[in-house]
Amino acid sequence: MAKIAILGYGTVGGGVYDIFNNSSFLKKTGEEIEVAKILDIRDFPDHPQKELFTKDFNDIVNDAEISVVAETMGGLHPAYEFTKSLLEAGKSVTTSNKELVATYGPELLTLAAQKGVRYMFEASVGGGIPVIRPIASCLQANDIERIAGILNGTTNFILSEMIDKGSEFEDALADAQQRGYAERNPAADIEGHDACRKIAILSSMATGYFVDYSNIPTEGICNVSLNDVKYAEKLGSAIKLIGYSQQMPDGTLYACVAPMLVKKSIPLSGVCDVFNAVMVRGNYLGDAMFYGRGAGKEATASAVCADVIDIVKNGAAKCPILWETDKIKMMAPEEKEWSYFVRTSAGKEQINEMFGDVELIDDVVSGEVGFVTSLIKEKDFVQAVNKLGGTYIKVLEA
Amino acid sequence: MAKIAILGYGTVGGGVYDIFNNSSFLKKTGEEIEVAKILDIRDFPDHPQKELFTKDFNDIVNDAEISVVAETMGGLHPAYEFTKSLLEAGKSVTTSNKELVATYGPELLTLAAQKGVRYMFEASVGGGIPVIRPIASCLQANDIERIAGILNGTTNFILSEMIDKGSEFEDALADAQQRGYAERNPAADIEGHDACRKIAILSSMATGYFVDYSNIPTEGICNVSLNDVKYAEKLGSAIKLIGYSQQMPDGTLYACVAPMLVKKSIPLSGVCDVFNAVMVRGNYLGDAMFYGRGAGKEATASAVCADVIDIVKNGAAKCPILWETDKIKMMAPEEKEWSYFVRTSAGKEQINEMFGDVELIDDVVSGEVGFVTSLIKEKDFVQAVNKLGGTYIKVLEA
Repeated sequence: MAKIAILGYGTVGGGVYDIFNNSSFLKKTGEEIEVAKILDIRDFPDHPQKELFTKDFNDIVNDAEISVVAETMGGLHPAYEFTKSLLEAGKSVTTSNKELVATYGPELLTLAAQKGVRYMFEASVGGGIPVIRPIASCLQANDIERIAGILNGTTNFILSEMIDKGSEFEDALADAQQRGYAERNPAADIEGHDACRKIAILSSMATGYFVDYSNIPTEGICNVSLNDVKYAEKLGSAIKLIGYSQQMPDGTLYACVAPMLVKKSIPLSGVCDVFNAVMVRGNYLGDAMFYGRGAGKEATASAVCADVIDIVKNGAAKCPILWETDKIKMMAPEEKEWSYFVRTSAGKEQINEMFGDVELIDDVVSGEVGFVTSLIKEKDFVQAVNKLGGTYIKVLEA
Repeated sequence: MAKIAILGYGTVGGGVYDIFNNSSFLKKTGEEIEVAKILDIRDFPDHPQKELFTKDFNDIVNDAEISVVAETMGGLHPAYEFTKSLLEAGKSVTTSNKELVATYGPELLTLAAQKGVRYMFEASVGGGIPVIRPIASCLQANDIERIAGILNGTTNFILSEMIDKGSEFEDALADAQQRGYAERNPAADIEGHDACRKIAILSSMATGYFVDYSNIPTEGICNVSLNDVKYAEKLGSAIKLIGYSQQMPDGTLYACVAPMLVKKSIPLSGVCDVFNAVMVRGNYLGDAMFYGRGAGKEATASAVCADVIDIVKNGAAKCPILWETDKIKMMAPEEKEWSYFVRTSAGKEQINEMFGDVELIDDVVSGEVGFVTSLIKEKDFVQAVNKLGGTYIKVLEA
């Protein structure tokens, strides 16, 4: 019998309890897994196992019988202090807490290795979609050259509503809030901060070095308008919020989060509603894509549980440190080349002078044109477009 | 230093050699991996390491320094005998040989477990796409309720050519042969046998029991016509060759390989050309999809290498038997309910009498109509459609 504890009985923590309570993993692991304690500051007087609940973290960290703890509380504090104490006490920890992994991942992974236990975080990116383990294991013969992902379900839902129903951004956001897909304060999602933490974690996995999310230029979808969506459609593309990272030939890493035009021939373009997908390019494998529900109680909980089962089955002896505490050197983002989609009321002659012989779309919004540039360094583009006047969106390369 | 051997220096074996020769995995595994011997009946006098080649299997099985062997020869014999001897000699084996895994998987997995070594086969399904390990590991908290996959690149290329270029089947096949995507004798691909072995392996993984591919009704794409493709387009669908399996409530397994109409809202419909994709439905996770190149030298080799690296890194101590030697009880396929797309020259009245008030498409081929039935048991459908006269294709449920 393996005894585990859950920190935080919210949506995901409740899902973890349900899964271990409703299923037997005896055949898969060789022993039953039992939820022995649950930490939450709230009371659950009507819970069928209300005796499992405690408000005192010491009841868990000092319980020698508990070998694995699922941390599903979210937020940095006290999740960080709790996780550290648990690892120091020789317990393995699994988590869905992207904030914590993106911020303190290297320290916690190193501590886990020193203590001969594991710190696992499949659920921190892509909810229930297998993506952390495939990158760490199935793709380990490859150098990961590029990652491009739709990493946030809320923004993907909003953009899908704009595309499918012709809603303006504000209406689509209100709809997402009504359905419970967006928080009342939606900043973390719509400003791209959630996607930023996730691409930081994936980039750390891919490079083996710490990618600090605060170094990743991040732009949300608040400025994407229905007219942008219409232009994208004209260009055989869809607008998606993309978490992007690329290993550059000089060993630096480029990363960003930004809305991008994605050609319909790229499978990411067809990922709609609250679904997430991560496209990974390996030097041998080429592009592979992982797709599924990026959020939701049961999907995310099932990823936390998979980590718990893995630890119960395989033990903690072999604990690879997945990435170094050293930070990777980031490329100066203004040096990165992109194609850009531009909307401007400038004249054809001025456009051609600055961006060459581009094809103009003039039948979407009267009094302006849209066009796509060739590849151009961000700093050169910004300088040129500032002279020209207009708005712009990056174009994801195939 | 971990020494490995390769059996069969064909496309995949050559790729395995290249990857280990060109990359260092010291950081990932803690030791270098060196190809020490290669078995092939042919001579390679110009190979830069021609001293590695041997025609005598005993040179490998008796070499105590070799701990892992990559079997990339394909076919049942002598791959089966070689693999058995290697496992008995205490060496782990990784393979891309779907035929062997689908036929002798349970015996070889059991033998590996008895000997404390591993038998791994990520490359046997989906080429380089991670799918075996994600099912075995990331989804282990889930019951796998359903698998639907595009598992054969050749047939997907042919169907894509029919859809995109309006080619007839024979012309698309000839094109595939010219490009090297289809064999001169294409039966294994176009008759569905390749996909059948792959869905058998995936179903065995999902259920934990041996799914014998010879019990899976298998239909290829030889009878799919350009007019079928046109009807599918009218119905907002694409025709794909689907390997399908489903766990039924009574504990039996239903499986089949057949061309199916796939609605454009199902992500499998957008998987084109030689790409493969596997959609897996977990009871907690919902649908997840794994997408990528299902074949090709480097992609497939990278999956074989990932298995080798895994063994070098994690050792062979924990060797789960992934499925039992007992065969799972299969559902009688004629009892399974499907919707069907039907083309017939029968009259509206007769159609309505047999299949209810279905919507008729009458503007694709003159002198006939097409329609989609509600869910109906295969045996009842076949009886009815035989009376009516006409051709039909299964419709994949969302």
